[in-house]
Amino acid sequence: MNENIEQKIPTYDDVLAAHERIKPYVHKTPIFTSQYFNKLSGAELFFKCENLQKAGVFKARGASNAVFGLSEEQAKKGVATHSSGNHGLSLSYAAGRRGIPATVVMPRTAPEAKKDAVRAYGANIVECEPSTSSREETFARVVASTGADFVHPYNDARVIAGQGTCAKEIYEDLGEFDILLAPIGGGGMISGSCLTLSNISPRTKIYAAEPEQADDAYRSLKAGHIIADDAPVTIADGLKVPLKNLTWHFVSNFVSDILLASEEEIIEAMYLIWQRMKIVVEPSSAITLAVILKNKHLFANKRVGVILTGGNVDLKKLPWM
Amino acid sequence: MNENIEQKIPTYDDVLAAHERIKPYVHKTPIFTSQYFNKLSGAELFFKCENLQKAGVFKARGASNAVFGLSEEQAKKGVATHSSGNHGLSLSYAAGRRGIPATVVMPRTAPEAKKDAVRAYGANIVECEPSTSSREETFARVVASTGADFVHPYNDARVIAGQGTCAKEIYEDLGEFDILLAPIGGGGMISGSCLTLSNISPRTKIYAAEPEQADDAYRSLKAGHIIADDAPVTIADGLKVPLKNLTWHFVSNFVSDILLASEEEIIEAMYLIWQRMKIVVEPSSAITLAVILKNKHLFANKRVGVILTGGNVDLKKLPWM
Repeated sequence: MNENIEQKIPTYDDVLAAHERIKPYVHKTPIFTSQYFNKLSGAELFFKCENLQKAGVFKARGASNAVFGLSEEQAKKGVATHSSGNHGLSLSYAAGRRGIPATVVMPRTAPEAKKDAVRAYGANIVECEPSTSSREETFARVVASTGADFVHPYNDARVIAGQGTCAKEIYEDLGEFDILLAPIGGGGMISGSCLTLSNISPRTKIYAAEPEQADDAYRSLKAGHIIADDAPVTIADGLKVPLKNLTWHFVSNFVSDILLASEEEIIEAMYLIWQRMKIVVEPSSAITLAVILKNKHLFANKRVGVILTGGNVDLKKLPWM
Repeated sequence: MNENIEQKIPTYDDVLAAHERIKPYVHKTPIFTSQYFNKLSGAELFFKCENLQKAGVFKARGASNAVFGLSEEQAKKGVATHSSGNHGLSLSYAAGRRGIPATVVMPRTAPEAKKDAVRAYGANIVECEPSTSSREETFARVVASTGADFVHPYNDARVIAGQGTCAKEIYEDLGEFDILLAPIGGGGMISGSCLTLSNISPRTKIYAAEPEQADDAYRSLKAGHIIADDAPVTIADGLKVPLKNLTWHFVSNFVSDILLASEEEIIEAMYLIWQRMKIVVEPSSAITLAVILKNKHLFANKRVGVILTGGNVDLKKLPWM
């Protein structure tokens, strides 16, 4: 399978270039504060609302950077990825904005709502069986027949540089801050944040939040090498995927610690955010508040940038119902 | 029952004074746009997010204006109101910020969650039977024993002037715009909007949105006098109350039309806003989008300020579940 990944480690110049490139296509999302959560946590929290981002998720940044960085020649052949989630949606969005073909390989069992959302952005869906072998085989066929550029959900220098624009905006809005906290799945957002902050604010500590039930990054960090789980089960469905070499580079070098939360704690934090902040966030976003409330000693009296990564949930299946 | 209402019609100077007075206690809420809803409606929509206001609702403006405008002497005796909804919450919030007593008369049958929210702001709840006579009797007793100032939910010059600060902020952010659209219940927000816009942007048309099942303001406007229904039933529970003399003054003089939406249309619009804008809004807010989508010819190619009035919903009882 030709994954066509750009394996070079991105630099902060790549983040700067990405920010210029994607500005017309993504929001500079607002930062919300909440007296209630400040009081509850003892910290000063600044919530970066990437749930209000295009496509409802920060991944619009990385996908737009990849898509708008393509040569005219490559752009004509389009882009492709395999993802039934936020990356597929974001790549479809970005390709739609550039007006180039996008193909998303999705298991035929993926929810119709997700397929509809991808199609609504004008992308082409190729269905596979819900197995890794079928996905890889199908994807290889798509790339061979179209010549499409593979944009990996996170292990791609262009994607990491794109995600790095989020921490850059936080720094521009807040000035100095003590801690950045973001969820970790494959590590794209955390890696982009490490890339940016290690360059412009090396004193800012970086923490990641991960579900107890998908704690492969936590165990990787403790072990000193990548540990990948086969099929973790968690409500935070954006956080199931394992680290890969590029994201491991950033996590292993720049992340102070990975903090875990139970399914119950994630759901409770999600409910609290909806109730008090009046915004729709995914479980994968709410895990940040969950680990803050669980580790108050780490955050007390600190200025903390908290990335609420996305808001794409099935409103008809809420976990507290 | 000594309602102690300030019956004078407020002026735009009162709005200006209110804005200065309440600025430290309320948010200047953001205005969100949505390419999706612009495309769907053919209009250019600017959503003023009062769901992100203190206490989760625009009523924090009027309540803060009333509370912070009291003399020291009156402030010591506190404020009182009868409301099991957003006004009770907002008055409790404002009184809590000033550190003065607030009493809210609520039916003993009101949801515990609402009572808890009022108590969390430090207000005192006096329960009554769920009937108008018990409410009035109980309320009169509270006022007699405490000397508290009655702050009516909407038929109060101080409250109307406070709500008028919202349209002022929209105008300051947008400059000229063609239409202002807000929901109508008792008419406090609409009246404040009329007061402000008739002074600073008389060319801006004002439309109100009302549930078909609680269409007393609509029928009042057609009839040329106030019609009050006894106990309308609608999911938009903020919009059940009738117009009163002060709000009728503004509605009858400045509102171009009142547009109706069915319960189903309100619920569908609410779902769409949550899904696409990733924000939590009440049915009473979502009715604005419902009437836009139902009356596209009125809004097409216009710059429309849309007030999303509040976000206080029971997350465990969503109408599409």
